Amino acid sequence: MPAPRPRLLLSAFLMNTPNHILGGHWRRPEAQQHRFNELSLWTGLARQLEDAKFDALFFADVAGLYGQYDGGWQHHVGKGLQVPANDPLVLVSALAGATEDIGLALTSSIIQAEPFQFARQLSTLDHLTDGRVGWNIVTSVLENAHRNFGAAELERHDERYAWAEEYAEAVYALWEGSWDDDAVLADKASGRYADPAKVRRINHRGERYSIDGPHLVEPSPQRTPFLFQAGSSPRGRAFAGRHAEATFIFAPSPSSAARSSALVREQAVAAGRQAEDVKVFAGLSFVVGSTEDEVRRKQESLEASLDLEYILAHIGGGLGVDLGGHDLDARLDDLGAGSVQTEGTQGHLETLRRLSPDGNPSLREIARARAFGQQIAGTPEQIADRLEQWQDAGIDGVNVMNQVLPDSYTDFIEGLLPELRRRGLAQTEYAPGTLREKVFGRGARLEPSHPAAAFRGRGADLDSPAVPAGLAATGPAAAAPEGVNA
Amino acid sequence: MPAPRPRLLLSAFLMNTPNHILGGHWRRPEAQQHRFNELSLWTGLARQLEDAKFDALFFADVAGLYGQYDGGWQHHVGKGLQVPANDPLVLVSALAGATEDIGLALTSSIIQAEPFQFARQLSTLDHLTDGRVGWNIVTSVLENAHRNFGAAELERHDERYAWAEEYAEAVYALWEGSWDDDAVLADKASGRYADPAKVRRINHRGERYSIDGPHLVEPSPQRTPFLFQAGSSPRGRAFAGRHAEATFIFAPSPSSAARSSALVREQAVAAGRQAEDVKVFAGLSFVVGSTEDEVRRKQESLEASLDLEYILAHIGGGLGVDLGGHDLDARLDDLGAGSVQTEGTQGHLETLRRLSPDGNPSLREIARARAFGQQIAGTPEQIADRLEQWQDAGIDGVNVMNQVLPDSYTDFIEGLLPELRRRGLAQTEYAPGTLREKVFGRGARLEPSHPAAAFRGRGADLDSPAVPAGLAATGPAAAAPEGVNA
Repeated sequence: MPAPRPRLLLSAFLMNTPNHILGGHWRRPEAQQHRFNELSLWTGLARQLEDAKFDALFFADVAGLYGQYDGGWQHHVGKGLQVPANDPLVLVSALAGATEDIGLALTSSIIQAEPFQFARQLSTLDHLTDGRVGWNIVTSVLENAHRNFGAAELERHDERYAWAEEYAEAVYALWEGSWDDDAVLADKASGRYADPAKVRRINHRGERYSIDGPHLVEPSPQRTPFLFQAGSSPRGRAFAGRHAEATFIFAPSPSSAARSSALVREQAVAAGRQAEDVKVFAGLSFVVGSTEDEVRRKQESLEASLDLEYILAHIGGGLGVDLGGHDLDARLDDLGAGSVQTEGTQGHLETLRRLSPDGNPSLREIARARAFGQQIAGTPEQIADRLEQWQDAGIDGVNVMNQVLPDSYTDFIEGLLPELRRRGLAQTEYAPGTLREKVFGRGARLEPSHPAAAFRGRGADLDSPAVPAGLAATGPAAAAPEGVNA
Repeated sequence: MPAPRPRLLLSAFLMNTPNHILGGHWRRPEAQQHRFNELSLWTGLARQLEDAKFDALFFADVAGLYGQYDGGWQHHVGKGLQVPANDPLVLVSALAGATEDIGLALTSSIIQAEPFQFARQLSTLDHLTDGRVGWNIVTSVLENAHRNFGAAELERHDERYAWAEEYAEAVYALWEGSWDDDAVLADKASGRYADPAKVRRINHRGERYSIDGPHLVEPSPQRTPFLFQAGSSPRGRAFAGRHAEATFIFAPSPSSAARSSALVREQAVAAGRQAEDVKVFAGLSFVVGSTEDEVRRKQESLEASLDLEYILAHIGGGLGVDLGGHDLDARLDDLGAGSVQTEGTQGHLETLRRLSPDGNPSLREIARARAFGQQIAGTPEQIADRLEQWQDAGIDGVNVMNQVLPDSYTDFIEGLLPELRRRGLAQTEYAPGTLREKVFGRGARLEPSHPAAAFRGRGADLDSPAVPAGLAATGPAAAAPEGVNA
């Protein structure tokens, strides 16, 4: 008898906007994503997913318009292509009290909030949710996002990751290094709230940030929130290997997923962590039917409401290439090279070329590959068989993309989940504790091998009035007198 | 028969921290503010205040340590003097779904969030609460707060207000100017989500910020959240007169309150608004008893748990003066002038001098004046009589300070509110609509005379690829090509 399979981790891939990945479906009569401004849409969905014992709601985000299509952003506004895009931190906070067990993960870019503010907000939320918060670290590839935060243009890719490293160091110092575990006394008898000898400034002095501290929030259940990261470039994978507890991949097949997972896990090991310290989620969408006939009818219906131009605009926005203004049957080589805007684009274009045997796919083929390449359609048994193949390829979980809110999740829960549970592939109860404990089955805090752990108990270093060794005093406060509060 | 009195507006003055203003009471056996990290404390309180038809929860905030006492901040950490201080935006967002009518106001300093991020977060929250959000605009007087956000030192007072003016302009442009009222179509039949001709970038180019836009959130019920501001300096009052829909004053008597209110209203009129466009809240605490004997017993008990050194440290932190290390009977003139740290402090010290006939009060007198100067103790009838005097002095409402959570509000609601209602001084039902509609009894949007209204419908201005006339192109993006997305 074979060993029982581990369960699959399940998260719902969401965004507070009318269209996320699979655009156009909001127009369907039953679709409710046009109510994305209303809290009741999200509390209903969160409770439904919690009843189904999903591990997490995962909110994607953008901090600006998703690039250009046909020479501008009018197309995006007209179609609701991730605009409007409401703030996920506010939404996730609003879901804290509506849920008890499900993880609440949000995307926040290093460009949109200063480390001191962001660390404080996530710590507050980790308290209010009893340790259910996750953070998806992103660097923002969208030029408009950078121009909403004072930058003249998009930072170069590698510099964004250097920025992300400093950002991570700063928030880790606040989360892990500023308050000792036993700093809070909250002792009514003695009147001592905390022991000041166990609370320290961080005195971060870096290229971009100068932060005194101390952290304004006492240690929350997880301290550092559960860390997601989805880098797919070599530099991004190195970052994910070093920092991420979970990574998302978008792969067209189990074998492709196996390669991507192996690359991230290699980076984790290279950074001194264990390969299994990074959980790999595959982004997948589903069409579930009780018969093959029903599956086919649903597929046809969904194909009719899918908007291929939306998909194409989304692909181009992510690449920094304007793919608009062409017939969908135009081929990649016909577009000219003038619209290539960012470094790294050429590599991504190579990926698109592989979609066609002759290296020159049509725009329609490109859009269809994105829309259907990560889709699994079938009866519950057929889908479960396929998911076992993904699991055998090294995938730990699925980030479930939706076509329709809430029906895509209702179909998944009512149609597919019973079969997954029958096979032991889906949990029937939550494990106790924080999101980190639920996912890894170990402690609420990051492992000692994680880079954040290096900031723990940095007593004298952090409290010292002098600039700590190894941190260059290049920030704007470098010339200021130190030790004022020490 | 005299005309019926208008009702008093009522807000609860709160902070997500173990001690807010009246420090030390957290040590009382019945006090629950040591549970400030737990959502249930706040949802319970919010529902209790909503059942009582309070107009708003008002959350104060700091973005750093509250100055120094006795040479450092160890005292603050030891006593829990506004540290820990959790993020109010996250908490208020978590209360959105737990309440239906009560206003949710939060303090956010211009130093802690970039205008684009902050405007987006408040718009999201205004959607999720159906228009119940208020923003208390502050500039931060705390040096540590500025040093947590990259600044070497506290900005000079007047420069902070110039900064606040630019900040307000940027968020107003996003809230009022970027999306027309009829921009959103959300039309499933045509597939048009919004009309791009009615959505515009803001192209803000100022001294501190460069922001392209457009705003990422479609118009929320109030657009600009209900605006609180509590400036008490001449520059601060001018800012409040120009921008605030409600202001808080801390006055020791109705006659003092009358002077302060008149000054703010004068500034409103000078800015082209109506005197009654600014609602004035007085910060007051209460000791309610059914008999004078009970009042006296409660007063004695509360005096025993009040921490005068806490009060003193809080006063000094706000002034930028270290008042620690002295006997409470030491007098102001004995302290020496070496500890004066910020401009404006001298003016505040003059205010303290007026607490004693000889101009040289003791530290104890200073602390007691703060603790008890805004306290009204008595039977319900006695307190209601006093509140009528405050109302006759021009006060529109009360920001109710607490000694003990939740008991100070329970006492207010159970002991005092029936008498206030009997006299028509407190509402028994909520008016329909947004916070702004509930408070002013008119529209959900700011009046045309408010400076934010100037940003409405600035079509071509905002959309123009050229830098709009009248805005200097001094921001970091000034050299960047314009019109990329236009």
